[in-house]
Amino acid sequence: MKTPVKIAVSGAAGQISYSLLFRLIGGDLLGPDQPISLSLLEVPQALVHLEGVVMEIQDCASPLLHEITCHSHPEAAFDQADLVFLVGAFPRGPGMERRDLLEVNAGIFSVQGRALNAAAKRGVKVLVVGNPANTNAMIAQRNAPDLPPENFSAMTRLDHNRAVSLLANRCRQPIGEVQGVIIWGNHSTTQYPDLHHATVNGRPALDEVGRDWYEQEFIGAVQNRGAEVIRIRGKSSAASGANAALDHMRDWILGTPEGRWVSMAVCGDGSYGIEPGLMFSYPVESRDGEWSIVQGLDIDAFSEAQIRASEAEIKLERDMVRRLMP
Amino acid sequence: MKTPVKIAVSGAAGQISYSLLFRLIGGDLLGPDQPISLSLLEVPQALVHLEGVVMEIQDCASPLLHEITCHSHPEAAFDQADLVFLVGAFPRGPGMERRDLLEVNAGIFSVQGRALNAAAKRGVKVLVVGNPANTNAMIAQRNAPDLPPENFSAMTRLDHNRAVSLLANRCRQPIGEVQGVIIWGNHSTTQYPDLHHATVNGRPALDEVGRDWYEQEFIGAVQNRGAEVIRIRGKSSAASGANAALDHMRDWILGTPEGRWVSMAVCGDGSYGIEPGLMFSYPVESRDGEWSIVQGLDIDAFSEAQIRASEAEIKLERDMVRRLMP
Repeated sequence: MKTPVKIAVSGAAGQISYSLLFRLIGGDLLGPDQPISLSLLEVPQALVHLEGVVMEIQDCASPLLHEITCHSHPEAAFDQADLVFLVGAFPRGPGMERRDLLEVNAGIFSVQGRALNAAAKRGVKVLVVGNPANTNAMIAQRNAPDLPPENFSAMTRLDHNRAVSLLANRCRQPIGEVQGVIIWGNHSTTQYPDLHHATVNGRPALDEVGRDWYEQEFIGAVQNRGAEVIRIRGKSSAASGANAALDHMRDWILGTPEGRWVSMAVCGDGSYGIEPGLMFSYPVESRDGEWSIVQGLDIDAFSEAQIRASEAEIKLERDMVRRLMP
Repeated sequence: MKTPVKIAVSGAAGQISYSLLFRLIGGDLLGPDQPISLSLLEVPQALVHLEGVVMEIQDCASPLLHEITCHSHPEAAFDQADLVFLVGAFPRGPGMERRDLLEVNAGIFSVQGRALNAAAKRGVKVLVVGNPANTNAMIAQRNAPDLPPENFSAMTRLDHNRAVSLLANRCRQPIGEVQGVIIWGNHSTTQYPDLHHATVNGRPALDEVGRDWYEQEFIGAVQNRGAEVIRIRGKSSAASGANAALDHMRDWILGTPEGRWVSMAVCGDGSYGIEPGLMFSYPVESRDGEWSIVQGLDIDAFSEAQIRASEAEIKLERDMVRRLMP
């Protein structure tokens, strides 16, 4: 039997994890012959509810589940972890200022970063899902100086998938015919869904959909899709978020198909003029478990302005919580 | 490209479906190269919420999803369906008598049975998840006289999986070492989890766990596991139910492994002395998409009494709603 892969999940009693965990033990991430150990992290007051989730996980009788443990201490949860999904975050409540939200989450993610630094495998792959995801990921990464920065990422794959789906639907083409979509920047309403390099059925996407629809409909639709789901469904995206988290990790680990890229927020190296060290969503390819930013794409003035605006927002967030960034 | 398989799901805006649908489009039922069309059924007042679920499904950008449609009329939802998950049922409310619950659901499932009879593919496979599942399935089957009775089933796979997991856990053995567990009868607290033919690591399960634990702990734990999950988690089983529904359908369609059986409630043929025509959970094997009841198992007096008690309950339920059974 293969050695089990240890997967840690924070916010394990929450809605996104409820969609994620059962797909993990179903083999949706690493296939039907890779055993996994689940290490679940929650705040103490959610551990009872988490116990109920664990019962349901056991009730699946999955032959892939090697072990399952629950923790309220990050270091215990992350001990020797191979893969970490940081799903939990403090949600924005009524009357809460953006600065307050950033600060409380920065506190959480600085602790988790130090715990990863101390306990996780040196090759651990970390995906931050909890919002504000980019800044949370940057905080965690900066608090884990003994781990390579490349081990940290934040999720813009849900935005990416939304953009792919909206474009395919607009063109009445199958999902598989869409390539080259990019989400740049922050996982927020300043994200920039870029179709300049996208193709549908091999033809330039912007020729297919027209500049007006792209600028006046598409960009806003992707940026505000999360709010729209809440408006219609009455709850925030959970299953689609979990699905995107699986897509993100799977492509990172197993590699992107030749000539295709996906969007991931990663620790920037100055590519495309973005300040190095920011956790910024780029077009990314992956080989042998290592991502690389796709280089050499032409960026026109329209795109440049959008990308800069999202960069500015990430810098602003970073500045608000700078004291927690060693 | 393969021809899409059309899968209809009722109660599509509910919690179990929320766990089921995303696994269907992820390929968990029929594999990563089988396109599917989803046909979702809900009551009119839930169609708006369902629209939010559809948005999230689209946001997965699954290359397997060929088409998705929403319906409030069963005949439209079941039109040319290959596979049908009848998940939706009227839940038991405060002060509601068992008879009332049976009757309101019998009304729903008689309509759905007639709709299946009129519209579904002749080889359709129907799984009833919504409770009371056995009687609901019997009602649907009896109202679909032009479809083979073998096309209908009710779910006891969640009970089966719970029994396997509890047994493996007790013996501290991997799930894969457990074989031969049976759930007999009704998906209710009269179900009989039978370990007389079960083995763990090739050794008789009853020798491993002892008769006392089996009779005094195990049987009740399986029968009451659903209530226990509600007590701990605060909500009824959803993801584990969806997982069991996938297991049930997958094994039915793709076949059970050689020499292994699973538990399915199917239209009985008199096997083991059970009244023919009752929807009764049996040990079942499947080949080429057709289930058959495992024959020739020895049933001792203890088991016989338990099996008869569950049969009696199903007959009682059937008698309460007999007027809806042509």
